[in-house]
Amino acid sequence: MKTIYSSAHRAHHAGSELFGNKVVPCYEQPARIDAILAQVVAAKIGPVLEPKDFGRSPITAVHTPDYVDFLEHAWQQWCAAGGEGNAVCSCRPMPDMSRRIPTSIYGRLAYYSFDSTAPITAGVWSAAYAAAQSALTGAQLLLQGERAAFALCRPPGHHASSAYLGGYCYLNNAAIAAQSLVADDMTRISILDVDYHHGNGTQSIFYARGDVQFVSIHADPNEDYPLFLGHAEEVGVGRGVGYNVNLPLPRNTEPQRWFETLEVACEQVIRHRPDALIVSLGVDTYEHDPIASFKLRSADYLRLGQRLAALGLPTLFVMEGGYNLDAIGVNVANVLLGFDAAPAVKARSIAG
Amino acid sequence: MKTIYSSAHRAHHAGSELFGNKVVPCYEQPARIDAILAQVVAAKIGPVLEPKDFGRSPITAVHTPDYVDFLEHAWQQWCAAGGEGNAVCSCRPMPDMSRRIPTSIYGRLAYYSFDSTAPITAGVWSAAYAAAQSALTGAQLLLQGERAAFALCRPPGHHASSAYLGGYCYLNNAAIAAQSLVADDMTRISILDVDYHHGNGTQSIFYARGDVQFVSIHADPNEDYPLFLGHAEEVGVGRGVGYNVNLPLPRNTEPQRWFETLEVACEQVIRHRPDALIVSLGVDTYEHDPIASFKLRSADYLRLGQRLAALGLPTLFVMEGGYNLDAIGVNVANVLLGFDAAPAVKARSIAG
Repeated sequence: MKTIYSSAHRAHHAGSELFGNKVVPCYEQPARIDAILAQVVAAKIGPVLEPKDFGRSPITAVHTPDYVDFLEHAWQQWCAAGGEGNAVCSCRPMPDMSRRIPTSIYGRLAYYSFDSTAPITAGVWSAAYAAAQSALTGAQLLLQGERAAFALCRPPGHHASSAYLGGYCYLNNAAIAAQSLVADDMTRISILDVDYHHGNGTQSIFYARGDVQFVSIHADPNEDYPLFLGHAEEVGVGRGVGYNVNLPLPRNTEPQRWFETLEVACEQVIRHRPDALIVSLGVDTYEHDPIASFKLRSADYLRLGQRLAALGLPTLFVMEGGYNLDAIGVNVANVLLGFDAAPAVKARSIAG
Repeated sequence: MKTIYSSAHRAHHAGSELFGNKVVPCYEQPARIDAILAQVVAAKIGPVLEPKDFGRSPITAVHTPDYVDFLEHAWQQWCAAGGEGNAVCSCRPMPDMSRRIPTSIYGRLAYYSFDSTAPITAGVWSAAYAAAQSALTGAQLLLQGERAAFALCRPPGHHASSAYLGGYCYLNNAAIAAQSLVADDMTRISILDVDYHHGNGTQSIFYARGDVQFVSIHADPNEDYPLFLGHAEEVGVGRGVGYNVNLPLPRNTEPQRWFETLEVACEQVIRHRPDALIVSLGVDTYEHDPIASFKLRSADYLRLGQRLAALGLPTLFVMEGGYNLDAIGVNVANVLLGFDAAPAVKARSIAG
């Protein structure tokens, strides 16, 4: 399997973040990707390619042009206003407030933010742009007949909606890839999100559509980020009814229950009969992840890859979360190794 | 003039806050009120009284019962969930998200917050409750025939809306006092907000009402907090049309322009023919305030008090912002001294 990777992500590093009520070193940091890349190479997953440049139009097919303009120029505007350090939003427009978009960077940042965990850094645009292009390059590989590809994206994307950033995410790489496949010659896509956190941005982007199915296994949003989306009763609207499938799980979920839920998710994907599968691959389901609570072990990621391979679909893996630096590389590589190695027989036996 | 003060505010002290992208010692801190109280005593403004207890019903006449329940029990819920330190919100429900209120403290805090500058501390409820009772006690003094009273409230209130906290504010003391006067025998009230920041909560609470007029002089929200409310075109809705008057000013406004704008504000108050005036008294318009940019000098606050006295209305001063610890006491005392000392002749000459 080919991996698509750009070193542009390095330019985006905030240093510290407000996590709960404490300022801590960023969990979402370049070393995550270093660790994954090293393991991709060590495990001989396959060649590592630079992304091609598909331009801005596949991005604005998913995100609003005003939001993309904001993201591209936010750092310059912040510096021009005398900003020091990274720019983070301080508040949010409330329902009883004006929807007028402020012209100042302070106001624009607050307007386009879900939270303060996705700061504007000097390198945020080049990193986010390269991550989106990596996902698009992976999608193109599927169109060219590859069985699978791995877009090693950073920053991640699934919390970014059409017009806001948040949760370490700026551009929704998986959504951009899915839209590009639909814009080409595919008619139905499934996005399976296995990150610990619900992919609120992806859900929101495709919520009224029947062509792109969104299936997610995640921590119950009543307790965990993103708190306000990801409930089981969110099934889509309009043409999208039935194409949004949320499978929330309680904190501290053990592997057995997680894999039972994966079976439900896979059944939903099969029902959709997609032309391709996009996996929003978070490995913060790991038992020792510093900001999550599920109990998957490293060997479980091999099993995950095997099960996904058994779906028999062209599959694009898009990197999302995972914050245990000691294990993130092995866990991701295990998914890819499991996928690449799995013959149908072995997969069937795992599926039960 | 009588001052109403409760030492309960001391129990609320967060220690540090996220200001922009930096964690700094709290600007909104007990020492602010210590400084004001010391100057009230030194300047012989008048007796200092404890607030009476009017119970919860005047609070829920302004704030939703679910929000008040949240505020009263948030600290216990936070501790029960294993929270350490103060609780601050991490994100906000976006327009494309569920409006379902989470049951977890993390979700409830985010749901009921405008920003992360108003943390839940061990003493927040007792402090906010006492501040609201101080404002209510001041309102009662007006009903009993006093010319004026000073509610030395902390935490401040004018950023708190009917169902959210933010901007150091939890319960809207000025709004609670105004509502209590209307609920008694007064028919028209004016709230004049002279804090540097727009009183978004107060505006929002009375936006559809014609009995309580809201007039505010503040920094243009396009540049300054609260960013999404306080524009001149916000004139009220329904019965409230014409009863909301925003007078935004640019950053670095000098005293001359500020006092010209105060004249416009006073004309609006006179037009409303209120039975009483409530002044949301922030002195963060001071030239050396650490988080604001207007250029008023200490002597200007005497002039402000004189001008307000010339309106000839029963007047309740409710303490809001002001963060320069060296000058906050003198600046507040000057307003009250100017008000108490001003005969009509002197006021007329100042008014031009």
